[in-house]
Amino acid sequence: MSDGPERVNAAIEGASPAMAAALSPLGRRAFFPPDIPFQAAQARGKAFNATIGQITDGHGRALALPAVAAGLAGLSADGRNRALLYSPLDGLPELRRAWARWQRRRLAETPQVVLPIVTVGLTHGLSILADLFGGEGRAVAVPTPFWGNYRQTFATRTGARMVSSPAFDGNAYDPRAVAKALADLPPGEPAVAILNLPSNPGGYSLTAEERPRVREALVEVARERPLVVICDDAYAGLVYEEGVPAGSMFWELVGAHPDLVPVKLDGVTKELSFFGGRVGFLTFALPPGSEAAAALENKVKFLTRATLGSPVAASQAVVLEALGRGSLAEEVEALRRELAGRYRALRGALADCDPALVRPLPFNSGCFALVELPAGLDAEAVRLHLLERHDTGLVSLPPRHLRIAHCSLEEAAVPELVRRLERGVAELLDDR
Amino acid sequence: MSDGPERVNAAIEGASPAMAAALSPLGRRAFFPPDIPFQAAQARGKAFNATIGQITDGHGRALALPAVAAGLAGLSADGRNRALLYSPLDGLPELRRAWARWQRRRLAETPQVVLPIVTVGLTHGLSILADLFGGEGRAVAVPTPFWGNYRQTFATRTGARMVSSPAFDGNAYDPRAVAKALADLPPGEPAVAILNLPSNPGGYSLTAEERPRVREALVEVARERPLVVICDDAYAGLVYEEGVPAGSMFWELVGAHPDLVPVKLDGVTKELSFFGGRVGFLTFALPPGSEAAAALENKVKFLTRATLGSPVAASQAVVLEALGRGSLAEEVEALRRELAGRYRALRGALADCDPALVRPLPFNSGCFALVELPAGLDAEAVRLHLLERHDTGLVSLPPRHLRIAHCSLEEAAVPELVRRLERGVAELLDDR
Repeated sequence: MSDGPERVNAAIEGASPAMAAALSPLGRRAFFPPDIPFQAAQARGKAFNATIGQITDGHGRALALPAVAAGLAGLSADGRNRALLYSPLDGLPELRRAWARWQRRRLAETPQVVLPIVTVGLTHGLSILADLFGGEGRAVAVPTPFWGNYRQTFATRTGARMVSSPAFDGNAYDPRAVAKALADLPPGEPAVAILNLPSNPGGYSLTAEERPRVREALVEVARERPLVVICDDAYAGLVYEEGVPAGSMFWELVGAHPDLVPVKLDGVTKELSFFGGRVGFLTFALPPGSEAAAALENKVKFLTRATLGSPVAASQAVVLEALGRGSLAEEVEALRRELAGRYRALRGALADCDPALVRPLPFNSGCFALVELPAGLDAEAVRLHLLERHDTGLVSLPPRHLRIAHCSLEEAAVPELVRRLERGVAELLDDR
Repeated sequence: MSDGPERVNAAIEGASPAMAAALSPLGRRAFFPPDIPFQAAQARGKAFNATIGQITDGHGRALALPAVAAGLAGLSADGRNRALLYSPLDGLPELRRAWARWQRRRLAETPQVVLPIVTVGLTHGLSILADLFGGEGRAVAVPTPFWGNYRQTFATRTGARMVSSPAFDGNAYDPRAVAKALADLPPGEPAVAILNLPSNPGGYSLTAEERPRVREALVEVARERPLVVICDDAYAGLVYEEGVPAGSMFWELVGAHPDLVPVKLDGVTKELSFFGGRVGFLTFALPPGSEAAAALENKVKFLTRATLGSPVAASQAVVLEALGRGSLAEEVEALRRELAGRYRALRGALADCDPALVRPLPFNSGCFALVELPAGLDAEAVRLHLLERHDTGLVSLPPRHLRIAHCSLEEAAVPELVRRLERGVAELLDDR
């Protein structure tokens, strides 16, 4: 445990010994670390702010889909009534059906699975899965680098244990990353794996060639142990290269092996650029109408009820009306093209960098790219230097990586941001 | 453990042994019991449905405040932008300030405490407190009868232990109910108490005479042990009688004793009749700007981040605009008067009942009233009988109580509902 929790616990102890004495073990270890939201707060108001994975116009304003903006500019009378009243615990039935169609819109054929269950954003779905499948000592395998909140949701909250292995072997995606992360676990012991594609912070999606290899490697793990595979599809659809399929790996994992339990997490946050709405979905690979499907729905309803009463009806009403507009798929495609432009600008600018200063990791999709810094430079020091001397905000992943969120930059601003990054790194190298 | 969790666990085991093997201890005990949402679902479409604590027009449609409806009919351009983007983890700062003013609007003077922290509805605030102050074995004292979700949030989720004592001694509120519930706990061991006023399911608020006695009894407990007192003010302001103050007990508990730690929970769900919005607030009795206040905010931000990413910006935007309208307090008062009419109709109808059939418990506020059934009659059997034979939905609290939610009935429908209840009880008594 870092000194962070100790420091905040001491502050509480000083002001109210009674409150400190009443803290639970989780209450004592609860500590909000200086990660992405903290770094984003520090970067607010900077000329170049590429910290937060939020799709904006490059100046901090939302880039709304017209179909979503329409709901916020006025719901129908039915929608207003829906927004005002409690949602069912598993979400509005019409919305669950509409999202099931949306999930399948690009796919020729998909296995029959239960309707998605509504959650309060993707992270809520993740924390439901952490409650169901995490807990003291449970191994959770995620290829590195990975989103820090996985650790908070699974490890700090429930006592699970993060295990990992590098996602990349040089410049090649390692299909056996999850298997390697779990190599030391006794056979038969259940485990959880997280597949986040397109990835945060990596901005990487599997190519058509890599997909069957990853599937096969996961099946191999499932031959040894029950394996829950969480497909975190937060950035679904944001792919920009030929040969990088947009569909979720979830559909390819359904039925792959009896001991492989795939779960799909997705939502409107990035897919519909509705960050403040908090509407996510949790889809289990169980036959519709089965007893097991009802049992799992029962458990999720318990957790939602005990954690936050019921999901947000107001945002569900907005999303339901957006899904009902025929133009939505086209609007999402227009947003993807806008982001593809930023992505290509970033690729181009990074290709012009001196690789001895700034080395991009492979990226082909999503909202981000990662760069590796020269050996001996500390990512956090580079971040602070860029913030203070170059009016530029990035996110540091110590020891040696910085994350660039191109989704929150104007395309025209990308080259200058990369120049400042390169210059900042060069200055710090010279200083040594 | 009832047979509920065993049944759903067996269903999962049958379909996917791997998934069953991967369930955590919490995953195994997670079970959504047939409580209020379940009973409300059964009562849908009945001629008289007084199951759910939702303020409606008596026919299932929302009874909106014009200030809230206005936001759903169209947010300002600023509001739309706010709704689309991520909220800060502790909520929109303008909303926190506006709610702090709203909390104090009826009070001459209040102690200086930190700004409220935004949660996703009141239950989310409750689950944050359960994470902070609950945990294995922790005693949580609540006078009976109490809202079943307290048990799910504190006991099933975190392993805390509910302890209780009757709220009423005959027809008199027992100010020492919390003290009695904690009587067996070794001195010095921290405990949590929940004060829910107006209460669910009781519809009871403390009178002006009872308040100092309850305060004194809680201080007495705090002389023996650290005591976190959660003031669950979900139904704040819904009082209908002279001599029943509307202000929260929270303000009277701040500073009452160093080992008494009061926390206030409130929100827009009932106060602004915005059930689907999921905007709640958590207010700690700590000095603004203090290190301890920052430490506690840090912990809450961790929990919100790890559980659901960030609070709902869309509903916060609606609430912020509603609070900015000068008419809001008047609209809330008009709604209170509407509910006061239903309350008086219920009082009158119950007063006409044969007390050998239907005996009302003391009630004076909120959304509900409780009735006690004759000895030997089972509340669940009466509920099902009313549902099947009298087209009437109530909520059962076994063994001997039924809850009437007058907030979801038209005033004119109240007498007929009570007649059906009395007749149903009489029929079952005759059948024995």
